[in-house]
Amino acid sequence: MSNKDTTLAPADSNRLFPNIRIVLINTFHPGNIGSVARAMKTMGLSELYLVAPKQFPAEEATTMAVGADDILASAKVVNTLHEAIDDCALVVGTSARSRANPWPVKTANEAAQQIVAESKTQQAAIVFGRETMGLHNDELQRCNVHVYIPSNPNYKALNLAAAVQIICYEIFLAGGTKSDYKQQVTEYSTKKDMDYFYEHLEQTLRDIGFIIKAHPGKTMLKLKRYFNRTRPELLELNMLRGILTAIQTAAHKKPKHDD
Amino acid sequence: MSNKDTTLAPADSNRLFPNIRIVLINTFHPGNIGSVARAMKTMGLSELYLVAPKQFPAEEATTMAVGADDILASAKVVNTLHEAIDDCALVVGTSARSRANPWPVKTANEAAQQIVAESKTQQAAIVFGRETMGLHNDELQRCNVHVYIPSNPNYKALNLAAAVQIICYEIFLAGGTKSDYKQQVTEYSTKKDMDYFYEHLEQTLRDIGFIIKAHPGKTMLKLKRYFNRTRPELLELNMLRGILTAIQTAAHKKPKHDD
Repeated sequence: MSNKDTTLAPADSNRLFPNIRIVLINTFHPGNIGSVARAMKTMGLSELYLVAPKQFPAEEATTMAVGADDILASAKVVNTLHEAIDDCALVVGTSARSRANPWPVKTANEAAQQIVAESKTQQAAIVFGRETMGLHNDELQRCNVHVYIPSNPNYKALNLAAAVQIICYEIFLAGGTKSDYKQQVTEYSTKKDMDYFYEHLEQTLRDIGFIIKAHPGKTMLKLKRYFNRTRPELLELNMLRGILTAIQTAAHKKPKHDD
Repeated sequence: MSNKDTTLAPADSNRLFPNIRIVLINTFHPGNIGSVARAMKTMGLSELYLVAPKQFPAEEATTMAVGADDILASAKVVNTLHEAIDDCALVVGTSARSRANPWPVKTANEAAQQIVAESKTQQAAIVFGRETMGLHNDELQRCNVHVYIPSNPNYKALNLAAAVQIICYEIFLAGGTKSDYKQQVTEYSTKKDMDYFYEHLEQTLRDIGFIIKAHPGKTMLKLKRYFNRTRPELLELNMLRGILTAIQTAAHKKPKHDD
């Protein structure tokens, strides 16, 4: 059952979106910074900006990053949101709550499409707020677009890394990078194989008296419907034919196709 | 700026998918069980099955659940996968790796569509494996469908709760529950308002000598293009007209002062 995991990875699938940065404001728990780095890397994002984190670098961040420590190592720590987004043409703010300010609001999916499209030529940032209270109004007002993650209206407690995970997932999907999960190409039975099989099956059912010549009924129609719908693979079909032959032998009847 | 967070929550948005269960096999860290409960609840899932968890109940699970402890309280702990899926018509296995077995493989999005559709009348389960090694082959073979989460082919280190979060997010989207994130309905300016504004603007630009009668140029065309594209709201337009009036007043006063 061994199967080499031959990846179709692009040249640098750890850095698929060099112009898209994730900005975290005032992160309180350093472990969350590590979890965010991991979430980013699973989806090919690499640019992390930390605005006045409570503690960074931190051992807990490295522990939670699990192999995404390269993202922590290259993370930029700045003092103000301004420094983190100064060179960005598109700034997207994340918000779980309805706000009084009318503002262009997009779903994660819609925002990801826009971010990926615009980031081909310009810098884009997605800004995440504090663990407890998200972004302040004045921070949201500095964004071009607000994004929200559709979720249970009675329990909007997505944690920081989970929110980053979903946004990055949508960005990965929008980026259109081929995953390497290859479906094994299955060798199915041909129509001809199936015809031989049906002949064999019908003969066997007659041999054992399940189908009676005088009253054939709709047995074969129903069986053909079943097998056509479930599409046996060639190996499976050969096995089924082996079973039919064994049945015929046991019933002391000579298989018809051996004539 | 106050805005009541009037939710459009359905009667029980914490239990949107009573026929869809999340099954965790041999979870090692109890904290992950809590994070999974939280991830489920954010997306309206409620049914959690734990197959032979290392430790449960556990304080760490409750800590990580943050308000999703109702899901932990009703979680069913069983000894075998068989017990967890016995009554399920659809069993979906999660797998990050390519496998030799040919099997119907769907993306998270595709699988979610199927799960939501079939769970309207039948029980469905989504099975997640161990933190370190996922599902064993014999467990995957007991599933009807395999699902994978598209991700960076060079770094498939989605943690358990992150994987559950994405699958549940796709289920929530497939469920079509309206989010309560309501965009404030904005009162935009009418064409007539805009025409008055352009008249006022042009007159003001003439008053201050920016547009010269003999050489009007394309100033107004460019300004109209800008304002039409950016669609000022009515309140914003009124403010702009106020500014124009102030400019005119200042410009008219000026000669008087100079007199």
